[in-house]
Amino acid sequence: MEGNDVTLVILGATGDLTRRLLMPAIYRLFVRAQWQPRHIVGYGRSEWTDERFREHLEKSLKEFAREDFERKSWKELAARLTYRPGELHAEHLQGLAELVEGPAIFYLALPPGLFGEAAEALGQAGLHREDDGWRRIVIEKPFGSDLESALALHRQIHRYWQESQVYRIDHYLGKETVQNLMVFRFANRFIEPVWNAAHVEQVQITVAETLGLEGRWRYYDQAGALRDMLQNHLMQLFTLTAMEPPAVWHPEVLRDHKVEVLRAVRPIPETAVERFAARGQYAAGTVQGQQVPGYREEPNIPRDSRTETFAAVKFFVDTWRWKGVPFYLRSGKRLRADYSEVAIGFREVPTHLFRQTPLEGLSANWLIFRLKPSECIDLYAWARAPGLQLNARHLVLSAPFRQDDEPEFSAYEQLLLDVVRGDRTHFLRHDEVEWAWRVLDPVLKAWQHGAPEPYAAGGEGPTGQHRILEPGHVWRPIGKLDNP
Amino acid sequence: MEGNDVTLVILGATGDLTRRLLMPAIYRLFVRAQWQPRHIVGYGRSEWTDERFREHLEKSLKEFAREDFERKSWKELAARLTYRPGELHAEHLQGLAELVEGPAIFYLALPPGLFGEAAEALGQAGLHREDDGWRRIVIEKPFGSDLESALALHRQIHRYWQESQVYRIDHYLGKETVQNLMVFRFANRFIEPVWNAAHVEQVQITVAETLGLEGRWRYYDQAGALRDMLQNHLMQLFTLTAMEPPAVWHPEVLRDHKVEVLRAVRPIPETAVERFAARGQYAAGTVQGQQVPGYREEPNIPRDSRTETFAAVKFFVDTWRWKGVPFYLRSGKRLRADYSEVAIGFREVPTHLFRQTPLEGLSANWLIFRLKPSECIDLYAWARAPGLQLNARHLVLSAPFRQDDEPEFSAYEQLLLDVVRGDRTHFLRHDEVEWAWRVLDPVLKAWQHGAPEPYAAGGEGPTGQHRILEPGHVWRPIGKLDNP
Repeated sequence: MEGNDVTLVILGATGDLTRRLLMPAIYRLFVRAQWQPRHIVGYGRSEWTDERFREHLEKSLKEFAREDFERKSWKELAARLTYRPGELHAEHLQGLAELVEGPAIFYLALPPGLFGEAAEALGQAGLHREDDGWRRIVIEKPFGSDLESALALHRQIHRYWQESQVYRIDHYLGKETVQNLMVFRFANRFIEPVWNAAHVEQVQITVAETLGLEGRWRYYDQAGALRDMLQNHLMQLFTLTAMEPPAVWHPEVLRDHKVEVLRAVRPIPETAVERFAARGQYAAGTVQGQQVPGYREEPNIPRDSRTETFAAVKFFVDTWRWKGVPFYLRSGKRLRADYSEVAIGFREVPTHLFRQTPLEGLSANWLIFRLKPSECIDLYAWARAPGLQLNARHLVLSAPFRQDDEPEFSAYEQLLLDVVRGDRTHFLRHDEVEWAWRVLDPVLKAWQHGAPEPYAAGGEGPTGQHRILEPGHVWRPIGKLDNP
Repeated sequence: MEGNDVTLVILGATGDLTRRLLMPAIYRLFVRAQWQPRHIVGYGRSEWTDERFREHLEKSLKEFAREDFERKSWKELAARLTYRPGELHAEHLQGLAELVEGPAIFYLALPPGLFGEAAEALGQAGLHREDDGWRRIVIEKPFGSDLESALALHRQIHRYWQESQVYRIDHYLGKETVQNLMVFRFANRFIEPVWNAAHVEQVQITVAETLGLEGRWRYYDQAGALRDMLQNHLMQLFTLTAMEPPAVWHPEVLRDHKVEVLRAVRPIPETAVERFAARGQYAAGTVQGQQVPGYREEPNIPRDSRTETFAAVKFFVDTWRWKGVPFYLRSGKRLRADYSEVAIGFREVPTHLFRQTPLEGLSANWLIFRLKPSECIDLYAWARAPGLQLNARHLVLSAPFRQDDEPEFSAYEQLLLDVVRGDRTHFLRHDEVEWAWRVLDPVLKAWQHGAPEPYAAGGEGPTGQHRILEPGHVWRPIGKLDNP
């Protein structure tokens, strides 16, 4: 199989990411013979032995890949596992050189603050050199906490690594529904002709969670909803929706097109951020029947924290295609439902056509790419209502992306295979990251002052989000699947 | 209620149409208080009494409106029923004048050959005069058997009646799904932009029946599939699909637009009819597990009958919208399934976009308005297939027009109410009928010679139908609902 000569080095091998997400994905690929790496080297500060490392992972797999766990395959995989203790210093990392032969992946399962340091140390140890096979480095968002820190991170990475060696993960791009945004757009003839300002009135991208902090207080209180969700996941949904059709299906061309969208976003005026962005922070409330505390009452959160747990922004994309069409993005915690969608709102039909009939007052069509609670496409349309009068009523043309009996692949399985194959389509390029920060920079600056608006947990977020909508627009209800 | 001052006169009141379709519709409207005519006068040659007429209809209703039949309402309706015997002569019909007061409908439930004579006689008797209320005349297809006879019929009708008084029924226009063609097209923003030759590759309209002659030999062997189905029902589906959007929703404007389509049909060259039309006649075979005889073996059919039971034609509409797009129409008896649809076939996407991926070779999208076996809209689209590879697969965005618990209204109920209201939207204007004949005239002439191709009952019709398709086009399979 392709990639079976690859060595995978995991930096931060004793940590949570390795245990919960990375190792289960590796194991599943291994069991299905989709990727069986020659050698997996765990690296970390803990003074573990190979044996301890294997026992640790076996226990993790029994927890996080329980339904797939199977003794024989595990034995086979375990035989390929090695552990090396060490710091993120060149002299320590040089010890890896003897273990790494041929093509190799360095997966930085580390706190984001260590990405630059680790990339540099690997380079100093010469591990980036492709003399006897390709070398790739994998990091996962966040990539900096603002434009300046992102630029600094990229400079540090690029000191030794070529951009073509760097795989930046936004795991949303590994989601099948997100990839479907592209396939559906470009594989169907009836989409492209209406995918523009002549026919689209607005776009609403919502990623709503019922979850609260879930123990991530240390990171989250520094980050907030804008950095944690909107700058990366929602920006991906946004650029995939707004980009021009690529003339060829090539990773660099696709990413060129995504960056072009970000470059075309009309800069948010620093003096008028409140017309383009809104923030909120959850207060105590009831989520799906459960009483929950407010954000400031969460363990370890300062009582006066000004971190936003809800962020909404409005973009205009000044291209021929999208001139004048607002793109609304919002994401928040402790909302009414786990509900994510990209919703394309079409303009109205010429209603005077139906002036003398009950058809008057038709609301507009929506095309929905739903990620949660289920992955599907819904097209809200009007049809004649049954009966003797010529009345119209809503009907939903609906299709699930997946049948109930079809397995779901984790984004990590998808993305690991892509790294092995060298397919960079679903990874971020440095300029994509930078431009996403650039676009949001005025908002980040403005939000250094003031405080987010409180909103009751279990609702639809702060009332301030309505302020940014253009006249006549209304946020789609969160969690109502049958509502047009 | 509107129309409760109306008198309904049924000419041919003792016949089959009255018994099976008209009276059940009248009764249902009456029960639901949607229309309760002041007086219903049956007229026929049989020397019946009022009592006999009522008994006859009561028996019919118990058969054809069984689930709705209810003693009390029938008593109320029966009290409004009168019968008058007579011939279709002015002097006999004058006797009706004393019974008809105010607005009145004359429903010609007569053999088509008598329409002209009856209309003229009613006029001679002065019953068309609108001195004390409107007067409307209702006739049902066929309207002539070719252009010449249709023109003669219209001249005869118009001797006394204004065009605005004439309601020509094609009961397909009373079908809700057919009306949905209009509503769906013009009430949804995403349709109109792709509804043209730039995006549509072909249109296929199929009305397939499993039924054979069903005792209609006298009429059918004279008519054939082209006259019986294609010239009227399928032409309606065709013009509704191809017409320009009306600027206002008005019966005359709608019918102007439909006639405009017929005028724009590229004339079929008399010397090349075989490239534009195909015919067949069913031979013995097996329909849905049942052995059935061939057409020439049916009772009363001449052993050498050359009547076609399957007809297919191809039209080009030379407008800006449709230039170069073939519209294929076909209808036949004793086919594999009862299956009717209007299928819009879109052009392919630029496939070189997917040249290096398994997406290559995507077939085109279809938008289907299905009339049978169930009324629904299906949109065949491509989406990403679940799995780790970027594969595409078909998915069907589907919506039924009617929920299972919603009642279906018969076309006759719909159309009767329209006559009462004076809404001529769903009735044919004389020029529409004439142009439908004009378009098919070369085919009718050519088919006076030669003979139809035999096809086995229970299949998809004669092989000759494929001859008329443009290169690369394929007839959609009959009866396969899950096939793109």
